[in-house]
Amino acid sequence: MKKPLILLTNDDGITAPGLRSLIAFMKEIGEVVVVAPDSPQSGMGHAITIDNTLYSKRVIIDKEKGAPIEYSCSGTPADCVKLGLQEILDRRPDIVVSGINHGSNASINVIYSGTMSAAIEAGIEGIPAIGFSLCDYGWDADFSKCKEFVQKIVIQALNYGIPKGTVLNVNIPKAAQQIPKGIKVCRQAKANWKEKFDKRISPTGKEYYWLTGKFELLDKGEDTDQFALSQGYVSVVPTQFDLTAHHTIQTINNWNLNE
Amino acid sequence: MKKPLILLTNDDGITAPGLRSLIAFMKEIGEVVVVAPDSPQSGMGHAITIDNTLYSKRVIIDKEKGAPIEYSCSGTPADCVKLGLQEILDRRPDIVVSGINHGSNASINVIYSGTMSAAIEAGIEGIPAIGFSLCDYGWDADFSKCKEFVQKIVIQALNYGIPKGTVLNVNIPKAAQQIPKGIKVCRQAKANWKEKFDKRISPTGKEYYWLTGKFELLDKGEDTDQFALSQGYVSVVPTQFDLTAHHTIQTINNWNLNE
Repeated sequence: MKKPLILLTNDDGITAPGLRSLIAFMKEIGEVVVVAPDSPQSGMGHAITIDNTLYSKRVIIDKEKGAPIEYSCSGTPADCVKLGLQEILDRRPDIVVSGINHGSNASINVIYSGTMSAAIEAGIEGIPAIGFSLCDYGWDADFSKCKEFVQKIVIQALNYGIPKGTVLNVNIPKAAQQIPKGIKVCRQAKANWKEKFDKRISPTGKEYYWLTGKFELLDKGEDTDQFALSQGYVSVVPTQFDLTAHHTIQTINNWNLNE
Repeated sequence: MKKPLILLTNDDGITAPGLRSLIAFMKEIGEVVVVAPDSPQSGMGHAITIDNTLYSKRVIIDKEKGAPIEYSCSGTPADCVKLGLQEILDRRPDIVVSGINHGSNASINVIYSGTMSAAIEAGIEGIPAIGFSLCDYGWDADFSKCKEFVQKIVIQALNYGIPKGTVLNVNIPKAAQQIPKGIKVCRQAKANWKEKFDKRISPTGKEYYWLTGKFELLDKGEDTDQFALSQGYVSVVPTQFDLTAHHTIQTINNWNLNE
């Protein structure tokens, strides 16, 4: 049987340990090609490079443990997927896998996530796609406990196919000692970030800000990704890119905008 | 009666004619404060500035026709909304209005749109929000025919309130001679972009790409934003930031990921 072709990308950059771990896990399942940003792109959301040039070159990051084919790209995660599909791969991949992100993309974080935007970009193109994140921001995070779960979810996605118009947002709890208890399919928890701007003065006297914030969970449901993670489970949220709030169309129609 | 407080932003930059028109339209309805990017941010999706500094300063773009309070910001549209809400405004705005974008944000474009990410950012904070776009990419686009529709939709949103968890994505057809026929509440059309990378060589011999693409409508429905626009109507899509594909949770559960 032909091995599945797996396109990998991420948003922490091509040298990030989370991606290097993912490459190792995926090489046991299929033929792996990497197209990933040449620098960190966290918080890039679904940005694409329109009015600027895009550089890309073949690289060797780790001859032994790396993928046979790796390209770095000056663009965003969504750019990497577009470039991979159109310019680098000579056939359609069987799946696009993004991550493993250093830090949570559960709940409202999916909106800001470069990791997930790469998966969504592939989904828009009709290709099965999954974004993986470990809820540990550290560069030295331990990805080894993710292996079993990442491989299982990718294999089942290849077996069953992901429902059309959907990509998977998978988050793995930070577990210092133990491995996750299991996998839960969830909905995205309602939450937001309470921003705080840290205002400072530059050496030349200019005011500037650092954006900081505190995650605020607004959801007591036990069917959410945040709840699953808090209980030590891996969360899987099927995520769609039809953003229509179908249930509110009638409400807006009642505004009688044409009278 | 107290005038509503309206926070304006956009993604084409604070000097863009689309925003300058929006300011004029909104000054007839409420008290207007502008916080907008100091340079174009098209295609920025829901990017935010995490690992970089953010500059912002009060500016006067047009003393007569401008807003009484305007700030430019070095960040993305989503940054502008965060900064406006947390640092610049002394009370919660009654509505956040983003645009008027130079170019369509209908259909799948909503995913890449900085204009809509600003509206979504406000929606996440629980503030009513609308993104407006004119389907004309020209810097010299004629925004005058938008006035009636933009004002009507904002006034009704202030009157009725926008359903929770929802923001409005409004697109206005390019109409050389005539004004739009009316307003239709729609769903987001299924579509994607067929990318083409234009590969070139820099003067120093480096390969680089320009991302180009062709919009490909994959949807024959007559209840979509693309259809409404093609018929000369303004499209209004209620847009949500709960990305959960609730209808597919059971399907993924059938994968038996815990066996």
